[in-house]
Order: sequence, then structure tokens, then C-alpha cells
Amino acid sequence: MNINMEIKNLIVGQSGGPTAVINSSLYGVVSEALSQPSIGKVYGMVNGIEGFLRETVLDFEETLFSNDLEKLKTTPGAYLGSCRYKLPEDLDDPVYPVLFQKFKELSIGYFFYIGGNDSMDTVSKLSRYAEKINSDIRVIGEPKTIDNDLVMTDHTPGFGSAARYVASTVREIVIDANVYETKSVTIVEIMGRHAGWLTAASALARKSVGDNPLLIYLPETDFDEEAFLEKVKGCFEKNPNVIVCVSEGIHDKNGTFICEYDNSVGTDTFGHKMLAGCGKYLENLVRNRLCVKARSVELNVNQRCSASMMSATDQKEAILAGQFGVREALKGATGKMVSYVRTSDLPYSMTLGLEDVNLICNQEKTVPLEWISKDGSDVTDAFLAYALPLIQGTVEIPLGTDGLPDFLSRK
Amino acid sequence: MNINMEIKNLIVGQSGGPTAVINSSLYGVVSEALSQPSIGKVYGMVNGIEGFLRETVLDFEETLFSNDLEKLKTTPGAYLGSCRYKLPEDLDDPVYPVLFQKFKELSIGYFFYIGGNDSMDTVSKLSRYAEKINSDIRVIGEPKTIDNDLVMTDHTPGFGSAARYVASTVREIVIDANVYETKSVTIVEIMGRHAGWLTAASALARKSVGDNPLLIYLPETDFDEEAFLEKVKGCFEKNPNVIVCVSEGIHDKNGTFICEYDNSVGTDTFGHKMLAGCGKYLENLVRNRLCVKARSVELNVNQRCSASMMSATDQKEAILAGQFGVREALKGATGKMVSYVRTSDLPYSMTLGLEDVNLICNQEKTVPLEWISKDGSDVTDAFLAYALPLIQGTVEIPLGTDGLPDFLSRK
Repeated sequence: MNINMEIKNLIVGQSGGPTAVINSSLYGVVSEALSQPSIGKVYGMVNGIEGFLRETVLDFEETLFSNDLEKLKTTPGAYLGSCRYKLPEDLDDPVYPVLFQKFKELSIGYFFYIGGNDSMDTVSKLSRYAEKINSDIRVIGEPKTIDNDLVMTDHTPGFGSAARYVASTVREIVIDANVYETKSVTIVEIMGRHAGWLTAASALARKSVGDNPLLIYLPETDFDEEAFLEKVKGCFEKNPNVIVCVSEGIHDKNGTFICEYDNSVGTDTFGHKMLAGCGKYLENLVRNRLCVKARSVELNVNQRCSASMMSATDQKEAILAGQFGVREALKGATGKMVSYVRTSDLPYSMTLGLEDVNLICNQEKTVPLEWISKDGSDVTDAFLAYALPLIQGTVEIPLGTDGLPDFLSRK
Repeated sequence: MNINMEIKNLIVGQSGGPTAVINSSLYGVVSEALSQPSIGKVYGMVNGIEGFLRETVLDFEETLFSNDLEKLKTTPGAYLGSCRYKLPEDLDDPVYPVLFQKFKELSIGYFFYIGGNDSMDTVSKLSRYAEKINSDIRVIGEPKTIDNDLVMTDHTPGFGSAARYVASTVREIVIDANVYETKSVTIVEIMGRHAGWLTAASALARKSVGDNPLLIYLPETDFDEEAFLEKVKGCFEKNPNVIVCVSEGIHDKNGTFICEYDNSVGTDTFGHKMLAGCGKYLENLVRNRLCVKARSVELNVNQRCSASMMSATDQKEAILAGQFGVREALKGATGKMVSYVRTSDLPYSMTLGLEDVNLICNQEKTVPLEWISKDGSDVTDAFLAYALPLIQGTVEIPLGTDGLPDFLSRK
């Protein structure tokens, strides 16, 4: 190392929806940065780039004792808070000089942003602007999304834990449904508007072939009501209690979302259209057309914010990716996103890489059609082989004096 | 022990909705019975008394190796399956001689039924019929319900784990809501039609006074929409992200359930009334009247069927109650339900008792009004002191080769 090398500070932010391990990524970045002699202060943007513009910045050394820092690894959500702020397309917009002036005031040499497709758009724009003005700030994206829809990476931090939550929760729902003998259909609605990765993970709930969930529908294929009803009828020959897992974003062949079907939702007291998911719609459809007991379960926000089913593999990889990004930035990398490269399936192994963030932002990776059964009602073994390693390992969540998970929070 | 004592068999069944520890109660009964030299075979009724009438009976020694028997303790749901079957009020009904003939054929000396209020009704009727015909069959009820609404017991097996699930899940929902700065209201709908015990447990999610959930509404008091909206407005002064926990059974002063408000649900394609919970109704109310971001989360079946938040205290007590019941039956008890008697609050300690099942069945214990704040929007510290000991301790759930919880299932 050049001993005359100028010491610069690092700033890191979180953006988009929370996950179980977005704080593990943060831990990776912060712990590595604090250990690097050529990095000075380690700052956090509170509420992402939007908060940064209002100068809501914290100093990790002042804010977190090292003991607390460890707690980031087992705290879901986004410790720094998040935002959904899109920087202007036009790099001549006055917001850019404002941002870079603030970077200068804080002696920022390294800008880290943890997020999904939209957040990588921020990384892309800031790195291009830095190049344009010959700034030596290095801008790095750390991947994050339960949706697993980032391109150029084998998978994303957050997906493994969310998939573990889905698989485990669906296994429990199956147990609940099996208690009674009466024919019943349970629709489980799982997050994923355009990409069905998380819904596909419900297949991991099966202990053996032929187990529930008997039907799985992803947004990658068109959903046909009549074919679905026929499928359900066929399932009753195998099991009186049928579990169906659907992505929130399933749609018909015209591209209309099932959750937007005109009469699926009704209107409320105020004459406004009610918002209800496709699960509720299908529950009603099954009850009315097949005359059987039907219910729907929307897994809702706990898919992304639950620590109880955190995957140890997911957590470890998020930390490693955070640390790797800092080391690569010190070597000169900028305008890159840290990626996961799978080197072997059995036994599973992966390594970390760097990809051009401009090729990643605003793209969406969906489940390959060859991993979906021909009739669109299941996933193939290839998907299971892909996903199974990512959900492995239990993380022990420290408990507080009240006996409940002791999560870290700001202030 | 009289060495000439006739060896009789024991039969046990499960009834009503599943819980996280109903199989722990079963484990207690079965393991104790198998260890008692004066008990012969240990049978299980598959799908409760309804299944028994169709002679769906299993022999625990043949069905479960002792290794598997241990797995009952960490398997949620109802291993034996359940039913919702009410025996006729009239003890002269022909079903009773049929049942007792079957008991005779199987040399049953001990009949155990694990369930809630309705199941205790079965215990009451069978014990009264046994007395009527001078049968020496001993009939014992083992308590079970997440609703915690059985009278003459401090609490019920299943409540502690469900309460731990609610508290922990709400704590995670709070973390999820805190990620963004924009004002938002999250309505969490929790099980409990007439008794608010489980919703009250959401207060345990708070790490300190003034934390979310800021509002908690139970069915023990009348719900007033306008007062609620005013409360929410007031909450925004403390926190932009307001979490409100409500029992599914909240109702207005006329006794009308909020979930049944005419326009709350709309109609579906078939012109049938849509079923939506009070959470969805309040979400719409808040969005329309307060013009803020609103969402609702229905905790749904995982409250009762999740092993991930099983309370070690709840599990241990369920096993002890099962074992105790068997020993008391051997001593001659019949027509009784095993009860929990709290002997000390701090430190928490309890002992087991027996209560007359006729005084328990078809009753409902609600949250005492003195444990609810005057304006009906919170619970008091007395409730917290009551509930906190019941959710203590983590149970390690064994994992299968797929890395997911390895639950036991029949066949």
C-alpha cells in the first residue's frame, strides 16, 4: 500500500424493500470498511439517497458499539431505513452537483448502495456522473431482493431466507389443512409480481413427490381459470386437502392480472375499488364453482421481514458480498455490482464476482421456462436443485430479556 | 398396586383446531400410558370421535417407534387428525351404546380427549353416560386452544406458542413498517372471535413503553370507528408508521361484527358476498378517511400451526398435563379436565389440577375488563405480567435432510 495514499471515507445506504439479510450485507460492508486502514470514517445514509440529500447521515463508529454491530446480522428490515427515490435520467440535472458537493464535504471516496434493480439504477447514474466529472469516487452496488430477479448473478441475498420462509410456512399450512377430512382447497398467495422465484420455492415444502402443494402457478406463464379448476378436481383424487401456491402477479393470456379482474374485489363503503389479491379471487372461484371449502392465505410482509426462518447460507453470503465489495472498491472497482457465481451444484459452491451495473439496472430475471412444467402448474427438479442449497442452515436469533428476538434499531 | 388389577387399554383423540403443541399433549398422554404397567394397548382415534365411530383407530406401539414418538413434541398440527363432531345432547341417543360397545371390544379403560370447549362437551357427555350405565371407563379432557378461552384454568396449552408467534411476528411487521418515512398505517388482524387473548399478546411485541403496536382492539369492548380514526391521527404525532392490532371479532356497540359491515366486502363475480376480514375493512377506512398509505396483514392459520415460534414453556406444560392426566385417571379420576394452576407470578410457577369438566364445557373465558385500558385501545401491565411467562423459551425443531423442519405425519 502506498503510505501516502489519501484516506477517504465510505458511505453506505439501503434502498427498496427490506429483507431478512439486507442488514447482513450492511454488516459486511461496515465491518470490512472499519477494518481497512485506508478507509477513514464509515457513514450510513439514513433513508437512502433521499435521506442523504437532507443530510441524514450517521457515523457507524459513533452510533454502534462493536457489540451492537454484530446484531445487524440477525436483525431483519433495513437498519438505515430505505427510500424509493429515482435519480433523474438527465446527468445534467442539478441534483448531481449537489450530491457530489456533499460527497466532497464528507470526503467520501466510496459510495455503497444495497438494493435491487431500481437501486442499481442509482449506482449506474452516480458512477456515470462520477466518470463524467472525473471524480475518483468509487460507486458499488450490493445486490438485495427477495424476488431474486437481478440479472447477471446466480441469485440474490434475501432470496434464500424468503424462500426458506415460504417453504417452511407452506409445509406448516399443509399440516394445518390435513387436520380435517373434508375436501378443502387452500390458496397461498406469495410475493412476486413479474418473477415467480419465491412462489416456485413453495415446491421445497414437499417432503416427497406427490406431496402438497399440488399446484404451483408462476407469473412466467399465462393462467387459465378453467384449466386450473380442472386441475384442482384432478387433485382431489390424490388428496382431499389441496394446497395451491400462486404468485401475486399471475395473469391471463391477455396479460390481465387475476387480482385486477373486475368483479374480484368489489367496492368499499366509499365506492372505491377494494384491493384484494388473486388468492382471495381464486378462493371465491373455487368455492363457487367447485362447491368445496376454500380459504386463502396471503403470506404478506413476513416473507421479507421475518428473521425466524433466516437461511444461514443466505446470511453468510450477504456478509461475504459486502466485505468483497469493499476490498474490490479499494482495488479500484467502480460502476459494478457484486455478483454471485455458482461454481458447482453438488456439492453447492459459489464465488463472488463483479458485473457492470449498467447491464443490470432496470432488468428483470424471471424463472426460465424450462424450469416450469409444460402445463404451467408446477416447477421441475432443475429448479429444486437450484434453490435447495440456498435455504440451508438455521440462524440462532439472540433473545432479549423479554424472551423475544432482540432486534437492533436506530436511536 | 393390586396385582390382580385388570389391565385395560387407553384411547386418545384430538379435536377442534390444531395448535403448535396439541401433539405435545398427545406425547404426554401416550408416553405416560406406555410406561404404565397397568395400561395395555395405547390407541389413537384418527379424526377424533367421528373417526372412531368409523373404527379408524391406530395402535401407537405399532405405528410409532419410540424415536418417532419424540418427534410429536416438535410437530405442529394434529397428528391424529381432528373433527368437529358434537355428540347428541340426549344421552338416550343410540350413538352412546354404539360407542361404548366399541370401547368394550377394544377393552378401553381410559378415554382421553384433547381439545377446547366443544371437545370438553364430548368429555362431559361420555363421562355422564359412563356413570349412567355404571361403566368403569374413565374419561379425561386435556385442554387445548390457542384462544386461551377455557374457564377454570390459568391458561391453555397452545396459547403460549400462538402468543409467541403473534408477538414475534408483530415485532417483525413493525420493523418492516419502519423502513420508509412516509406516514403509514398497518392493520394486523389476529385470531379470536369472542376472546381477545391472542390479540392482547401483540402488546408483548413492544420493546419499551410507547413502541408499536400503538393501538390494540379486543372483542371484549365495543369498537367505535370515529374514536378509532381520532386515535390513529393522534398516533402520528408519536410515529409516522402506526401499527394497529385487532381481533377478528371486533364489533360495534350494536354487536355487529366489523367484518360483516355491509359494504366492507363487496360481491364477487357470482354475486356472492365476498368474505374479507375486519383488517381489510379498516385498511380501506383509514386510506379513505385519513388519506394515508394503509395496508392490512391477516396473520391467518400460521398463528396456530407454526412450530417456528413454539414456546418451550408451552410445550413443557402440555407434556406435563398429558402425563398428569394419565396418572390421575389411574387413580380413579373421571369426568375431569386437567387444569393449570398458577402458584406464583414472579417468578412464574404453576401446578396441575383437575376440574369438573361439566363446569368447563361450552363456557368461554374472555380477557378481564380490568386488563383493558379504559378507552379500549390497549391492554394493561397486568395482562403483560400474566402473558410474558407463557411465551418463554425457544424449541429447537429438528431438520430433515432437506434442511427444513422435519415434521411427523401419519403413514
